[in-house]
Amino acid sequence: MADTAITPTRSQNYPEWYQQVIVAADMAENSPVRGCMVIKPWGYAVWENMQGVLDRMFKDTGHVNAYFPLLIPLSFLEKEAAHVEGFAKECAVVTHHRLKGDGNGKLIPDGELEEPLIIRPTSETIIGHQFAKWVKSYRDLPILVNQWCNVMRWEMRTRMFLRTAEFLWQEGHTVHATAKEAQEETLQMLNVYSEFAEQYMAMPVIKGMKTPDERFPGAVDTYTIEALMQDKKALQAGTSHFLGQNFAKASEIKYLSAEGKEEFAWTTSWGVSTRLIGGLIMTHSDDNGFVVPPRLAPLHVVIIPIYRNDEERAQVLDYVKALEKDLKAQNYVGSSVRVKIDDRDMRGGEKAWQYIKQGVPVRVEVGPRDMAKGEVFVGRRDRGPKEKASMERNAFVANITNLLQEMQDGLFERAKQMRDESIKTITNLQDFEKYFSGGENTAPGFAKVPWCEAGMGHELLAQLKVTPRCMPLDQEPVQGNCIFSGKPATKWVLFAKSY
Amino acid sequence: MADTAITPTRSQNYPEWYQQVIVAADMAENSPVRGCMVIKPWGYAVWENMQGVLDRMFKDTGHVNAYFPLLIPLSFLEKEAAHVEGFAKECAVVTHHRLKGDGNGKLIPDGELEEPLIIRPTSETIIGHQFAKWVKSYRDLPILVNQWCNVMRWEMRTRMFLRTAEFLWQEGHTVHATAKEAQEETLQMLNVYSEFAEQYMAMPVIKGMKTPDERFPGAVDTYTIEALMQDKKALQAGTSHFLGQNFAKASEIKYLSAEGKEEFAWTTSWGVSTRLIGGLIMTHSDDNGFVVPPRLAPLHVVIIPIYRNDEERAQVLDYVKALEKDLKAQNYVGSSVRVKIDDRDMRGGEKAWQYIKQGVPVRVEVGPRDMAKGEVFVGRRDRGPKEKASMERNAFVANITNLLQEMQDGLFERAKQMRDESIKTITNLQDFEKYFSGGENTAPGFAKVPWCEAGMGHELLAQLKVTPRCMPLDQEPVQGNCIFSGKPATKWVLFAKSY
Repeated sequence: MADTAITPTRSQNYPEWYQQVIVAADMAENSPVRGCMVIKPWGYAVWENMQGVLDRMFKDTGHVNAYFPLLIPLSFLEKEAAHVEGFAKECAVVTHHRLKGDGNGKLIPDGELEEPLIIRPTSETIIGHQFAKWVKSYRDLPILVNQWCNVMRWEMRTRMFLRTAEFLWQEGHTVHATAKEAQEETLQMLNVYSEFAEQYMAMPVIKGMKTPDERFPGAVDTYTIEALMQDKKALQAGTSHFLGQNFAKASEIKYLSAEGKEEFAWTTSWGVSTRLIGGLIMTHSDDNGFVVPPRLAPLHVVIIPIYRNDEERAQVLDYVKALEKDLKAQNYVGSSVRVKIDDRDMRGGEKAWQYIKQGVPVRVEVGPRDMAKGEVFVGRRDRGPKEKASMERNAFVANITNLLQEMQDGLFERAKQMRDESIKTITNLQDFEKYFSGGENTAPGFAKVPWCEAGMGHELLAQLKVTPRCMPLDQEPVQGNCIFSGKPATKWVLFAKSY
Repeated sequence: MADTAITPTRSQNYPEWYQQVIVAADMAENSPVRGCMVIKPWGYAVWENMQGVLDRMFKDTGHVNAYFPLLIPLSFLEKEAAHVEGFAKECAVVTHHRLKGDGNGKLIPDGELEEPLIIRPTSETIIGHQFAKWVKSYRDLPILVNQWCNVMRWEMRTRMFLRTAEFLWQEGHTVHATAKEAQEETLQMLNVYSEFAEQYMAMPVIKGMKTPDERFPGAVDTYTIEALMQDKKALQAGTSHFLGQNFAKASEIKYLSAEGKEEFAWTTSWGVSTRLIGGLIMTHSDDNGFVVPPRLAPLHVVIIPIYRNDEERAQVLDYVKALEKDLKAQNYVGSSVRVKIDDRDMRGGEKAWQYIKQGVPVRVEVGPRDMAKGEVFVGRRDRGPKEKASMERNAFVANITNLLQEMQDGLFERAKQMRDESIKTITNLQDFEKYFSGGENTAPGFAKVPWCEAGMGHELLAQLKVTPRCMPLDQEPVQGNCIFSGKPATKWVLFAKSY
């Protein structure tokens, strides 16, 4: 057996390590449909935990859920010019509504539709169409709606969780009477995403505004949270768009103001997706597999009973069942500590490695000797696999929520330190080129550079495969010139190689 | 204004009444995509409550959630002959993966797929394909998986919630080593559905097995829960299928037994959908709108403050905020009582009617006089709109969960009495014909008749638009002859007009 559970390791081949972590943790697999993945129970359980937290945060900020059609008439896509340009290139098109036999046991499409339908790549157009009916007067505003659903973009190069043809997400869509309210909503949801990423995913993010060349098609402003993976590539983890009146005009979302005047409304949209699971994996996992922050872990504690015969088994099982009950009575971040006893007929070491690979925060082994001493033998996922320690049983129970939070905080701190050490201020093009010239599979982190709009689309960027990630919201006054245009800089902008 | 909030009433035009209840309660609306509905926030909140309860019940019986692709390769559908026959006729077919401009500002499909893909009408084939990889040995069994998702069947005649092209559902898929285990699973999930329907939806159901002509395409046995709507038409509310080895053979789900022999596995599938919301509406609602059992109500209590000026407003709002807090501290069926204060600038009567139409179980009006007496003025959705009563404020709070459960039980009892009175035992074809000869829009309820397989497909059934609903699991020995074939009867079977 290799020294690590995952082959190759991160330093040997990061992209392949990522795929192998997903396999080892049994989180997802490819399907026979090109670019579409199967989210297996362990991966889906992480998504359910993410959904639970986010859904609560959305509701606490006044949003309600609804559901809109999967299919969008082709003509809807044509309404907003920039939007078409951005999404029309890559989508699944439904052209028939029936199958018939070809006489040789095969099926062929039949019943051609008058107007083709596309599977939603995002729902601004169809939701806008409905909102136009919902909104009559200023009294109907704001409309604060969210949708949990699947969407599809026909991606050419896919990677599990990070970029798949079909993915799961939530898309928030809101309508407001004023630009100011819509802008406040856009920033509020950016803050919700940032809080979720940092407090729950333990993934530090930089909040910023996208430069114009990276905006959502049809948006006035796109805000983003940007994270840095362990290979120093950036990941756009969530976006929140101020759409101005663009979509309101395309969909004719109008309202009668208090003064009796007909006005176009102001809209926003914002979303995060199963891509976050990819970010979670790449932020915390190690050469032994998945590492999941306790707040999102499907299971907090696994108890592995150790025994040699039926008599010992009966005794140990009684002991661990009582332990399980006491642990479940502890409350961690608003719900019971999640505990499982694994009594499968299998070697204890094999079980332990399975849970290490799956990222379960705490492993507890209990055998007759531990029992006799009133102890438990505890392994933590944020320590080495063999770095286990005996603990007094009651103290372990009493301390479990502190232990989980300590691990949660530790993961965040470690990731934040790595991220903070990977931001370099660069003020000329030569240094910029040198910083990013490490070759195909290496990345140095973020470059923070003086920038202006005239510098957008510099040829060096495509050559280096580097993109502007965002203009951080939190930034000091910029001095000097844009490194791309040579003109006076207007903002500090972060650049990076990215997923 | 009419005497009732909904026009027409149930007795005037039941199908149209149903549509108008949905409009009045603001639960759903049609979309520009043929047969696809928009589930609006109030309707979706009911679905979320249903999901929450069902998901807990599935997990308590050992199931885990996962997610499989939306699109299914055409060739997969061809694998199971009966299944193709049942589903191939009505499905959305994706044939292209790109759009391009036609030069005149219009978009046309481009990038034809080598093999067309269909939007899942149900996922047995694609999930079976994946399960074949998951299962190697008897140690991998059982596999107990559920999926919450959207599915699509290109229905010709649609009706909101009851029958739509796209709908939301859950589909459970399980794999077992033995026929017995798979059969037990099938019945266990039927019981879960029955418990959910009766305990949460307050909708009495009859558990039964489908006659062979009504089986799920590809199933060995299909079990169903059948409910009776207020217009005496039956509604199939959930099904659970024992698939035998049919799908295991089509998808090659094989396992190595403890004896080292390769065996085909046994599978089941089971599902309920947003159709349940249609059943909920048709079971309880009245001529004033939606009536929702408290256990599934998005809101239990709405508080409407009544005042004439700012001074009164301040006092009344303080009073109702304290009331809201005390009500929320009460626990109903495992969670806080759901309360809202509606302080919109609108007439109190208009507000009250909105909540009546939306089915909120309890309305509380509070004005300065109620306040002075330490009282609240309470209206119940299961009583007449004007049948309101003053109650001592603290007694109301202390009694709220009893009140909600009393309403829950009352709805079930009323529905059960109606259902029980609408089952008629019929032992000859003449009486059967007479029973069902009420014309297009009327139905008498269930006919319970002696039946045998040779009687299937009798021409009178199509003529009367009557179908066999199920062979009730709970049935006394049958005597006499099948009313359709004249041969000795083998079962009592329930027949009805249905949705």
